[in-house]
Amino acid sequence: MILEIPKSEIKERQKKFMNTLDENGLDACILFSTTDIFYLTNFMFRPSERPIAFFIDTNNESHLFVPSLEHLHAENYAVIDYVHSYPEYPGEVHPMNILKELLKANKLNNAAVGFDADGYSSPKGYSGPLISDLLSFKKTLSIKGWVEKQRYIKSDNEIQLIKESARWGNLAHNLLVEYSKAGSREMEIEGRATHEATRIMFKTLGHGYKPYGNPAHAFYRGQIGPHSTFPHSQNQNAQLERGFNVVSQAACDVWGYKSELERTMFIEEASNEQEMYFNHMYEAQEVAFRTIKPGISASEVEKEVQKYFKDNGLQHLVRHHTGHNMGLLNHEAPFFDLGDHTILEPGMVFSVEPGIYVDGLGAFRHSDTIAVTESGMEMITYYPRDFDSLII
Amino acid sequence: MILEIPKSEIKERQKKFMNTLDENGLDACILFSTTDIFYLTNFMFRPSERPIAFFIDTNNESHLFVPSLEHLHAENYAVIDYVHSYPEYPGEVHPMNILKELLKANKLNNAAVGFDADGYSSPKGYSGPLISDLLSFKKTLSIKGWVEKQRYIKSDNEIQLIKESARWGNLAHNLLVEYSKAGSREMEIEGRATHEATRIMFKTLGHGYKPYGNPAHAFYRGQIGPHSTFPHSQNQNAQLERGFNVVSQAACDVWGYKSELERTMFIEEASNEQEMYFNHMYEAQEVAFRTIKPGISASEVEKEVQKYFKDNGLQHLVRHHTGHNMGLLNHEAPFFDLGDHTILEPGMVFSVEPGIYVDGLGAFRHSDTIAVTESGMEMITYYPRDFDSLII
Repeated sequence: MILEIPKSEIKERQKKFMNTLDENGLDACILFSTTDIFYLTNFMFRPSERPIAFFIDTNNESHLFVPSLEHLHAENYAVIDYVHSYPEYPGEVHPMNILKELLKANKLNNAAVGFDADGYSSPKGYSGPLISDLLSFKKTLSIKGWVEKQRYIKSDNEIQLIKESARWGNLAHNLLVEYSKAGSREMEIEGRATHEATRIMFKTLGHGYKPYGNPAHAFYRGQIGPHSTFPHSQNQNAQLERGFNVVSQAACDVWGYKSELERTMFIEEASNEQEMYFNHMYEAQEVAFRTIKPGISASEVEKEVQKYFKDNGLQHLVRHHTGHNMGLLNHEAPFFDLGDHTILEPGMVFSVEPGIYVDGLGAFRHSDTIAVTESGMEMITYYPRDFDSLII
Repeated sequence: MILEIPKSEIKERQKKFMNTLDENGLDACILFSTTDIFYLTNFMFRPSERPIAFFIDTNNESHLFVPSLEHLHAENYAVIDYVHSYPEYPGEVHPMNILKELLKANKLNNAAVGFDADGYSSPKGYSGPLISDLLSFKKTLSIKGWVEKQRYIKSDNEIQLIKESARWGNLAHNLLVEYSKAGSREMEIEGRATHEATRIMFKTLGHGYKPYGNPAHAFYRGQIGPHSTFPHSQNQNAQLERGFNVVSQAACDVWGYKSELERTMFIEEASNEQEMYFNHMYEAQEVAFRTIKPGISASEVEKEVQKYFKDNGLQHLVRHHTGHNMGLLNHEAPFFDLGDHTILEPGMVFSVEPGIYVDGLGAFRHSDTIAVTESGMEMITYYPRDFDSLII
């Protein structure tokens, strides 16, 4: 079973991006964003101190600039016209000086060039000069975010990979639930569910499957009992106790594509108070599902959800917006947020996850992955959402 | 068993950093680097589209600026004087505008201020104005890399956490070896070794252990058979075959601290050619071990290793430098590289991993973690390195 973006689609992405450059009066471009480089070339690599760059020259030919250790790797995997490499970072000659000569040799200095950043950056020990300090161009323009915008709307192939991700996230989640018993500890449950789901996933799909990330996994991330009120917590290896509410997360990378599944669940039993908050969270998510459709702005969805919480006197328990786009990264723009007025279009893939947080008691948040369609939206995740199914 | 950096040491780090600012004529600073913020506050969080900042005001009081969903989390976990928060990103008012008012209220605009970046950045859908476009300061200076420099030299507590990391990396590696049989596949071996090592690790250490990253794990990363010549490969779920050389990687996060263990191994048997390349790699690593001591430059180590390869006619098979510092990130500066003239000091922790790559055959690279000591170096990883032990 082959799960990947075909080369022809990568070439279409490059062509579409070249058209955008052209429409904006640009002859060439330089990109340093590792996610955008994967999107435009299918070349997945491990970013480090060693800079990497992608550029398109004035003849619309594409180039990758990589460290020597990635040269053959890039030649074997990238959809690209030319691969260039440099010996090492920092090296006797700094890689940016080698890139400078390469850009000159390809006449980018005589061109109108867009770039997403004025040089490579990485927290892993990299430092180096700005491109604009090394070389003067005929004209430059910041194109930061342009590939990201192209990534907003997913193709059918991308949505298929996201659905494949949701399928195996669902298995990992089911196993997580199966092993979540009062008295058990976070890491052991997670490790077992993750290991087994991954094993079965590879056995099912065969070795045509490449994660380019993490295969099927399911976690609690420390969101166990009262500690779950920290929505982006860290693993505490906490012990599950009867009556706790817990918030799970299950996902899976398929050729780098992600989905998101989160459930609020109760260990063995739930109080009336827990049920009341759960039902409000459930209804708020329903409000979002009913609102999402192409042609409205992302902020509309958030407004409706906030209105629900306000009408029910729960606004003070809200700590974050309702959702985010996703694809090659787990969070991408646009957002279901009061300040995001991006118009929804078919092919956008969002998390829908309004949450309420009650200090001392816990978190109430589901997250589902949906795709905007021509007429409304389609659910991609499918784990049961109702209260009775989630007393575990 | 408590495995963490004590609060007193975090306070010393802050004090030391304040002294550096003071010595450079700075009254205050603003930092956006998530690793540096963890180092200076002990607050580990999941970076996303939502900006986070750390600043020190002119009274040497420390502040964290976080999204509302992290407010209580920060108050509970950070070593900090004040926690401030904003509702959401992008929000009705952009978080950078809220930060601007906060900086003004704390009089940073009247001060000489260092900052590591001119605003927050993240690939996860964030965009926003530069700090320098929002606010003018009395004086500014880029302090990018200053905390990173402070992180070069590890304290005794940090080295203890790195040693703890190496211990559990060693267990994961042993299990990886145990399950690596001809005919078995990459992911299944890795998943089983990782799951079991993690499980035992938590049972041994109790819940005083917090990974702040990934617990014990061991992988091949696609470095199986001829594919191992791509040194930073991706998981291929490849099948192990008799006579293949494989390159492993085992590690473990302990309170965010890392170690690195990699071994070149042979499935069941090795040819004379494989043994010859293995022995050269082994000797090159020995050359590095003999060279490392305080007072010499990082480039000296690389020079000696390159000399060994050149003397043996192997220079054309080398694709990367000999090693990198590590700690909270898996790669940090300085590097054992011809272009890195940083002077080695006791407390620096490096990988030592000269490698040779033979197309069609495979990779030959061990990686060990060492600490520079007063008189030379200390091995931190301890898995057998010799040829006979590594025919598995």
